[in-house]
Parts: sequence; structure tokens; C-alpha cells
Amino acid sequence: MSEDHRSDAELDTLLKRAGLSLDAAAVRELVQGVAAAPRGEDPDAWMVLLGAQEALPAELVARLRVLRDRVGAAPREPDVPARVAALRAELERRGLAGFVIPRADEHQGEYVPLRAERLAWATGFKGSAGLAVILRDRAALFVDGRYTLQVRAEAPSGIFEFLHLVEDPHADWVARSLPAGSRLGYDPWLHTVGWVERMRSALARSGAELVACADNPVDAVWTAQPPAPIAPVRPWDLRFAGRSSEEKRTELAAGLRRDGVAAAVITQPDGIAWLLNIRGGDVPHTPLPLSFAILREDGGVDLFIDGRKLVPDLGRHLGNAVSVRAPEEFGPALDALGAAGARVQVDTAVAAVWILDRLTQAGARIERAAEPTILPKARKNAVELDGIRAAHRRDGIAVARFLAWLSRTAPSGRLGEIEAAEKLRSFRSANELYRDLSFQTISGAGPNGAIVHYRVSPETERRLEAGSLFLIDSGAQYLDGTTDITRTVAVGEPSPEMRERFTLVLKGHIALATARFPRGTTGAQLDVLARQFLWKAGLDFDHGTGHGVGCYLSVHEGPQRISKVASTVALDPGMVLSNEPGYYKTDAYGIRIENLVAVRPCEDLPAAERPMYEFETLTLAPIDATLIEPSLLTSAEIAWLDAYHLGVREVLLPHLEGEDAAWLVAATGPLAI
Amino acid sequence: MSEDHRSDAELDTLLKRAGLSLDAAAVRELVQGVAAAPRGEDPDAWMVLLGAQEALPAELVARLRVLRDRVGAAPREPDVPARVAALRAELERRGLAGFVIPRADEHQGEYVPLRAERLAWATGFKGSAGLAVILRDRAALFVDGRYTLQVRAEAPSGIFEFLHLVEDPHADWVARSLPAGSRLGYDPWLHTVGWVERMRSALARSGAELVACADNPVDAVWTAQPPAPIAPVRPWDLRFAGRSSEEKRTELAAGLRRDGVAAAVITQPDGIAWLLNIRGGDVPHTPLPLSFAILREDGGVDLFIDGRKLVPDLGRHLGNAVSVRAPEEFGPALDALGAAGARVQVDTAVAAVWILDRLTQAGARIERAAEPTILPKARKNAVELDGIRAAHRRDGIAVARFLAWLSRTAPSGRLGEIEAAEKLRSFRSANELYRDLSFQTISGAGPNGAIVHYRVSPETERRLEAGSLFLIDSGAQYLDGTTDITRTVAVGEPSPEMRERFTLVLKGHIALATARFPRGTTGAQLDVLARQFLWKAGLDFDHGTGHGVGCYLSVHEGPQRISKVASTVALDPGMVLSNEPGYYKTDAYGIRIENLVAVRPCEDLPAAERPMYEFETLTLAPIDATLIEPSLLTSAEIAWLDAYHLGVREVLLPHLEGEDAAWLVAATGPLAI
Repeated sequence: MSEDHRSDAELDTLLKRAGLSLDAAAVRELVQGVAAAPRGEDPDAWMVLLGAQEALPAELVARLRVLRDRVGAAPREPDVPARVAALRAELERRGLAGFVIPRADEHQGEYVPLRAERLAWATGFKGSAGLAVILRDRAALFVDGRYTLQVRAEAPSGIFEFLHLVEDPHADWVARSLPAGSRLGYDPWLHTVGWVERMRSALARSGAELVACADNPVDAVWTAQPPAPIAPVRPWDLRFAGRSSEEKRTELAAGLRRDGVAAAVITQPDGIAWLLNIRGGDVPHTPLPLSFAILREDGGVDLFIDGRKLVPDLGRHLGNAVSVRAPEEFGPALDALGAAGARVQVDTAVAAVWILDRLTQAGARIERAAEPTILPKARKNAVELDGIRAAHRRDGIAVARFLAWLSRTAPSGRLGEIEAAEKLRSFRSANELYRDLSFQTISGAGPNGAIVHYRVSPETERRLEAGSLFLIDSGAQYLDGTTDITRTVAVGEPSPEMRERFTLVLKGHIALATARFPRGTTGAQLDVLARQFLWKAGLDFDHGTGHGVGCYLSVHEGPQRISKVASTVALDPGMVLSNEPGYYKTDAYGIRIENLVAVRPCEDLPAAERPMYEFETLTLAPIDATLIEPSLLTSAEIAWLDAYHLGVREVLLPHLEGEDAAWLVAATGPLAI
Repeated sequence: MSEDHRSDAELDTLLKRAGLSLDAAAVRELVQGVAAAPRGEDPDAWMVLLGAQEALPAELVARLRVLRDRVGAAPREPDVPARVAALRAELERRGLAGFVIPRADEHQGEYVPLRAERLAWATGFKGSAGLAVILRDRAALFVDGRYTLQVRAEAPSGIFEFLHLVEDPHADWVARSLPAGSRLGYDPWLHTVGWVERMRSALARSGAELVACADNPVDAVWTAQPPAPIAPVRPWDLRFAGRSSEEKRTELAAGLRRDGVAAAVITQPDGIAWLLNIRGGDVPHTPLPLSFAILREDGGVDLFIDGRKLVPDLGRHLGNAVSVRAPEEFGPALDALGAAGARVQVDTAVAAVWILDRLTQAGARIERAAEPTILPKARKNAVELDGIRAAHRRDGIAVARFLAWLSRTAPSGRLGEIEAAEKLRSFRSANELYRDLSFQTISGAGPNGAIVHYRVSPETERRLEAGSLFLIDSGAQYLDGTTDITRTVAVGEPSPEMRERFTLVLKGHIALATARFPRGTTGAQLDVLARQFLWKAGLDFDHGTGHGVGCYLSVHEGPQRISKVASTVALDPGMVLSNEPGYYKTDAYGIRIENLVAVRPCEDLPAAERPMYEFETLTLAPIDATLIEPSLLTSAEIAWLDAYHLGVREVLLPHLEGEDAAWLVAATGPLAI
């Protein structure tokens, strides 16, 4: 304590000397939030939030770094059994028979801030999807097929039953496990109304009751829970965005007026980022500014966000029509809409049920509809598409350098998955528009490549061995676009089976890349094109064929996708998707070939009888020809591959030198038949 | 009158002489119903319903024929304007501002009996789908894209606005057209609950009210409305059905018990036919016994049907667990279920809202679920599949004879569409298991082939001219199976464009015929396989790729289908579907290639990593090779075509002679490349 006090006095002096108005206590509180956000590629980036007019003195910077590192150091915490015991005691105090812990934050996002990692805290399980139900004397942890092994390694089996997230509906388990009259708690910020309705009807069968908790019982016992993250929220320049926020707000507001709606609640941070042309850094690998917004029929926006996150010039960028308000004012703002009897549009598929409940109780009339940002955000404009193409050229150079380096390094047999991933990151980060990876690299050698969502760790890491396949799925966030690419590379001589199956995957990739389709076609309709050749051999892959991708935003972005799951979302020009069929042989190897594509109108079809679309392939990197069995390809497929490689060479070769250039020339030559 | 009396006395004498207990009055009433049913291929078939132990005397048969023809002669009726005026007067009497007339019967079937042709009566429009709304001073007739021309020719434009069934929702038109406080009538026997809910919420906007009519106002003013049809309901032999009705009822009843349901209402006549192994003849081309049924958890069935329709030995066939009850007892039976507080399963997607309302008012608890017959009926058993294969062999012989005859006859340029269709019918009807066409033949020469649902009439008929295409889509009902086949034939020399587009259609047909797919795949997922080659050329076709087909039952049978429309119904072994991609050039020509296929497990995939299915092509008839551009086919596609033709030849050749045999040999030779 006295240590801190002395330290604070010194910090105050340094701050004053730098001409800053914040005192040490405020900085210390700020740093708590900073440490709860991802460190990012530039660990000093947060210092802009101190509001200095010029560069900070070196002594202050050093001091701030120490402060941040000290705060960010992982606190000592009790082990999982002790945490569960504390939580059960808390539930007992509240008269609850149990509590549901989803892996979710207030925005139902894929990436969540540290503060929202309640599932990991309470169970030890660190996967990206799952749900626990903790009752007085039983507990169950539900994960999907990706995590059946991992969950056993991370969560104590003495406490948790492990069940399948889809095949063993947790609502049924709870209904079976809870006696009549008991009360099951949930946090209304972490669930949608659909979940609540399903759970309520399941519990009705057993006579148990579902109870919303005003504050989360986990938060009450998680003493070292991080605060909400603080990372700088910056303007996203018009030269990347292509359309001003005012233009976007005006257009969406006209839609609200057309639908007779007074306001729309926007709960998706990527939608807010798109609408206001801002980017943040609150969660890993996605430049999200965690916040809520209300868009009004006059085009005005209330943005509910911690003001400390905004870089100094952000207010000017947002303009007068956007009011920055504290997060605590969100609830009262919903009350005000309700008091006015307003018709309020809410996307009940993603909005926390807390929001719906609050609006309803306040008297608002709810109009259920998708958040109005979703479709215009998905349909990239011409400027965004130009930026995305530039990002892919830049990314292609980095990937090509990496693959050339890999071809020289892998034969030693000593290269490991972590070093490979780090090397690829280093090639990318050399570029000045690079900001971050777009997700944690999947770097899988041999059998690890067969684990679809593999995340390398020192415990699982393998070397790249001769006769094996190496699968690397990675991407980057550049200021002008988001990339996502998978290449599968032979280390040494691949087996005939590997070549045959790689070629079947490639045939599917080409069939999708060359597809043409009429306006109104959904990704679900096209999915089979990528699977048909595997299916003929009795094979398949258990993931979607393509996901939407944002523009310097989420690498997984809806609403479009290409998958077996039925969809009503048509593929429209400007939408960016991945094309990533694969094949996985458990305990042996994994294959995936992933390029990003953009939907565009067909220009060269004069005889077309209706509006037709096609894909423009954006990703630029060689596909390993040593893994191709040419006799399985048609001449049209070979022509596509040769043309793709020629295009890759023309764009990338001017940027490569020496061994790298020679490698590229060899890797992009016509397929030897 | 005195004529009739004298006539009745004579008929009574003839009946008594034949040892029959019915008197002339009863026969006269029976014949009213007989005349309201389709005449069918054997116009005397209904006479079995007189219950004679042995063959009827020739004099009586002749007398009965005269009686039936006299009753069946189309009555003189007022014209459409007079009918609409009478209906409007009736609506005024009832205090209704308007009335909705769908093209539907009490079973929401595709084919309806004459009695239910209220839309045709009130508007003149004879298409197979549509809906009219008749208000006091306005009226609108909604039809789909198939009928936009036909409706203008048949319905008076001075009375009706013509609108699009899908693009101009009739609920919106009504909501716009009706003033607040006015009452719109509907017949609750002719709509589902979904329609009522949509219409009610549309009317709520304008403050109008939707009112169920206890009896249909059209029936009140349609003086010559036929009665319910009477056609013989016969046993369907176990050697065709493969499974006894008792076995089916026992299995379905076990499902009801598992779901805690006391009874299921079955409103679909084809489901009743399947469940009880019976066939009728109440509507054209489909052997439906129009009726309702209640299946109980003990496997017992109440069958609500006019007892006069049952052939003498049907009671024995049905057995003790099936109670035949009069149609009027259906409502009281629903009341009894309600009074017992029973959980009753109803398929709200197809059941008339009348049934749902009656059950609900009686106190029943409604369990919404698909009728339990639907899936087991769709998954044909091994005996049914054997019968279906036999039916296709038989049908192939008839079609081959027809195509051979066509090749000799068409070059004259004098052959017309009607004669061609009639010739094909005559080849089919020669077989002793033939019972009927499975739908009215689509026989389209030149531009008529481009009309997807063309029905030939003397006014529209065209000759088959040199340089044109002839499209013929037809099928038959055999006792052991239902067929449906389309062939497109070149008359004289086809143009290069015709050959190119025929080949694109053929490539799609082959892609679907040779597809393999994992268990759980839906028809929606496979649809693109049939379209992909047309799409690459900027072309498409505006109908589904495949519909389910019954076994000596409906030629359009759900729930499976292959189409752009999203579906959750997996293709299971035993399901029969059509594979019928096409291409239509308006005012020029139409192309369609249709075979039926059955889903079966793949037997020759030892390396398969999951259960895989494929299609067995059932239809056996040559595909016109003069329409194929071989350079557009892959070697695998050519191999499929050659193998298909070889199979066709092997099965059919032993049954053909002379010119027909020579034609078949030429038509099934390997494709000249």
C-alpha cells in the first residue's frame, strides 16, 4: 500500500510534467481496463487515451508500461473446485437451486472480453463455445464435437458431467435434474429470448422455475474478475470505409421511417463499428468497440460506451448527430423509449433478453427484425472491395514469403508448429497497414491438422515430419481489409491417398470458385458443389464450406454463409465469403484449401436470360501442386488452376526476391500433367 | 317426371330380376355420386357397388349406362356474371362484405372432386391453383405465373382484377379493399389455420373481421353443384403393399403412445389409402378414397366415408379394428375426443381449420405434428419398390413403342399433340395392370413445349413440325406403381442452340442421377447439381427439379422433394422422386428430361467413412441422342448415358418386335462422339 502511495506520487509528478490533466488514481483505474483488453500488436497503443497533445516523455512511457504489466499479471486464484464451492454457497444465499453459465458476453459475440470468461473461470474449460449448469449437488458441462477431448483435460471430471452441446440439450438435462418448485437462475444479459422460451418450456415439464438474476452470481464470487476492457476506439478513415457514417445513418433511418419504427436497438459491436466508421480493440483479433447503440428515425445515434475508450479526436469524427453516453444510461434510454410508447426494432436473435424485458416493461412496442446494419455491412461497397483486394495482395506477399521459407525450412524435420505460425505472423506484421491477426493461427502438423479448430500449445505442438501434411489456417487484420487463408502443404513425399483426397477437396474448391448462379441464390444451395466429389468417394467434412468475412472487422460475419444448414439469405454482390472445403482423417492428417471470394455480377454472359452472379477469388497464394493428382482433374479444372497461379505470380512476383521469387515461379507454373 | 316414374318402375324390375336389394331411387341417388366422380378407364367399374353376387345382366348394364350418362351430362348453368351476381346477393343476405374462394377441397389436395370446383364455377378459371376474393363491388382473382394468360381467356375481366398469387398477397389486397368494420367470410373446411392467422392479422390492420361460414355461400347458389363423388373403394392387395394394414397401424399407434397422444386425425386421403391398403377413384388420375380417419393409440381406426363407396368385400379386408362410420359422424367423433380431454395429434399444415376449431372447442389438447402416415408412406418398402420397378418396365415398353411410332409418324408434319397423347395412352392401357393415367398428359409441340404446365386443347393444339422440339410429359397408374416420365424429341433437324441447351439439361440430369450423398442430406442440398450447367450459361428453369411420387397413389407426394426451396426433410432409402431438369424458351421450344429415381444405400463404397446414399434410376426409355452435343459431355457423362441406354435395351428389347425393336436398337446404341 505505501509502496503504491509513493509510486502514485511519482506518477502524478510525471503526468503533470507531461501536461496531462489525469491524476495517478485515474490512470491506475484506466490501466485496470486496459489490462482487461487484449494487448494487441502495439502494446503502447492505449497511451493515446491519456489525451496528450504530443508524444509522451520516455520516462512516463516506461512507468506506464510497468504499471500495465503489473496490473495485467494473472492474479492468483483458487482452483476450480474452490470456485464451484464458492459459487454454490452464493446460489444457496440467493435461494437458487442452480445457475446457467454460457460462454457469452452481453453482445452474444464469438470473441468475448476477459471479464466475460465466466465459463473458463468456473470450469477451467477454455474452448470458444460451451455452457455449464451448476446445481447444488450436480454440474454438467456441454461442449460440441470440437472440444470433447479438450474439456476432459481442462475441467475436473469429479465435478462435471461432460455432455454434447447439441445431442444432449441442456434444457432437457436441467428439466430431468431439477425437482419441482426449485429455482434456476440465469443472467438475462447473456441469453436471447429464444433461449429463455425454450428453457422455460422445458422447466415447465418438471415444475421448476427459471429466474432472471439482476446481477451475475459468478461476478459476486470471482474476486479477481477483470473490469470491462478499455482499448482505444478510433475513427476508421473514409478512404477505407467508402461511405460516411452520416450517409449510412441517413439511409438506415429512412428504412426505420418506412417501417414505422421510431428507433432500432443495435447490440452488435461490429454493426456499431460499421455504422459509425469506428474501430476498437476490446476483444482479441477483432477491432470491436464493445458498446450499445440506439439508432433513431432521424438518423441520430446514442452510443453507450465508456468515454475513456475514445481517442481524443473521436468526438469530431462522430459529429453532432451521435451522442456519446455512459453505459449506465442505456437502461434509462430504453425506459424513455418505452415511456413514449415508441415502436422499437430489436433483433431478438442476437439481443440480450435483458434489453427486450426492459423495453417491454417500459411500455415500448417491440418490432422484431434483424439489426438494420447487418445486410448493408455484408454488402461491401466499391471502396471497401478495393481495400480488401489490396489487403489480399499484401497478405499474399506475406504468405508467399512464408511458404517459400517453409519449403526451405521444413525438410530439416525440426520445424515446429509454433515457430511456423510465428514466422508467418512476422511476415505479415512487417506491413504498415497490418494491425493484428484476424484469429489465432491454426498451425497443425500431421494428426494435429485433422483437428478442425486446433490451437497449438507447447503441450500439443508437433514437428513437421517427412511424409506428413501441414495445415495452416491464418489471417490478418489490415486497416483496409480482413484476410483468412488456409493452405495445406506436403512435407516430403505425400502418400497416394493424401494426393487423391487433396485433389477431391481441390475439385470442390474449384467447382465453387467457378460457379455462376442467378440472383436470389443462397449459400446453402451452392454448398454441395464443394462436397460432391468427396461424397462420390464416401467422404465429407464436418464444417461449413464458407463463412462471411468483414472488412477490417469480424473474420466471421453474417448473415451470408455457404453450408449444409438451410438459409434464406441470398448471396448479393459485394458479399465476401470463404471457400474452404476440407477433409480430415482422424489421427492422420487434415486437408483444407481456403480462399476468400467476393460475389459480383457476371459481365461476360451476353446470352444470360436473368441476372447472374459469380465469385471473384480474392486470396493470392500458390496451392501445393505436389499434392495434386492431375489425372483426377478435368481440363477445365486444370485451366482454372493454371490461370489462378498465373494471376498469383503476376501480382506477387514483383514483390519477391532471390530464393522467394524462384520458389514462386516454380510454385505457380502450369500443372505438369 | 312421369317419364322418370315409368323408367324407375322398369329399373326396379331389372334390379329385382338381378337379385339386387337396391331400388331404383337408391340407384338413382348413387348414380348422382358416380357421375360426380371421374369416369375412369373402366366406365362400368362403379357397378360393383350394387353388390351383385355375379355378373349383372346385359340389359341392366345397358340401362345403368344410360342412366349414368344422362346424370353426368353437363347441366345448363347461368354464365359467370350471373353466378357472381347470385353469390353477391347471397353474401348480402348473410351480412358479409365478401367471400374467399380458394381452389381447394376439404383435404387441401392437388386434385379436387367436381363438387369442390367452386373457383371454376364462380370465375370460369379452370387452372389447378388459384384463389378469388369476391367483394360487393370488386373482385380479384389470384393465379400463379403458369396461368397469367389462361386466366384472361377464361375469367371475365369486367368482373375480376387479375393478380399474382405470390407477388400480390391476397391478404394485403383484401386489407386494402375492405373498410373497417366489414365482415369477410371464409369456409373453414377449405383453409388451414396458418391461412386464417395470416388473413386475420392482415385484416386487423384495416379493422375488418374474418368470419367462418358454417356452410359455403357458393354451395347455396350453385344449383347444379354435383354431390360428393362415389367411386369404388377396393382393397389394395398385400402382394403390392408389402405390409399389412394391421402392421402399419400397430407401428403408428406405438408412435402415438410414445408421444403421449391418444389419437391422430388423418385428413389426407392418400395417407388413409396407404394406412388401410385401400384405393379409390374420387378424383382424376389419383386413386384416392376421399375420407377422414382417426387413428387411436390402440391401433384402431375410425374411417369416415360414405359406405356406398365400399366394394362388397371391403369390410373383411379392413378387419375389426377399423370402424366404417358415416361422414356426418366425424364432427361428433372429434367432440368425443375433446370431451375426454384427450391429447389429439393434428397436422396443422394440411388439416382444415374446421377440424382444429372443433377439437379445441370440444376441449381436446392439440399436439401439432405431421400426419404420422407421411414419412412411412414416402419410404417405400421392398415389395413396393419391386412393384414400382415392374411398373416402370411395363411403362418403358409402352413409351418405347410410342417413341418408335412417333419416329415413323412425326416426319409427315401432320401429327397433332392430341393424337400423340392419345396414342401413348393406348400403348399403356393395353396392359392388364394399367388403371389410369397418373395425370393429364402434357403434349407440347414447338412453342407449346415452353409452357411448363401446358394442357393440350383443340384450341391450342399444334402439329409437330420439322425443325421443332416435341415435349411429352406423361405417366400411368398401374396396380403396382405410379410412373411419370418426360421425353423431349427432335422433329427433323434440331438447331445448334436446341442441341446445346438439351445437352446442358442432360448434364444436370446425369449429375443428379449419379450423385452420392451422406445420410441426412435434403433434396434442397442436391438441387444445384441439376442446374449448375444451365447457370454457367446464364440459364435456369422455374420449377422444382424433383417431386416425390407415390406407389399406385399420388404422382405428387411429399414430404421429400428436390428444389430451390429450403427443406429439412432428409432423403431416406425407399423414397421415390423425379429427376426432371428442363429449359424453356418462351414462344420457341421446351426441353425437359424426366426419370423417376429411388433413394438407396451405396453398396460399392468400401472406403466410405459414413452411411452414403445414391439414386437408382427407375424409368426405362431412350433419351433422344440426336439432341445431344457430345463435345459438351465428359467421358463420365457419356459412360452414364451409354450404360443407361444399354440397360433400357436389355429390359425392353425382348418385348418389342419388328420396326419397334429396330428403332430401340438404334436409339440405345453408344453415343457417336
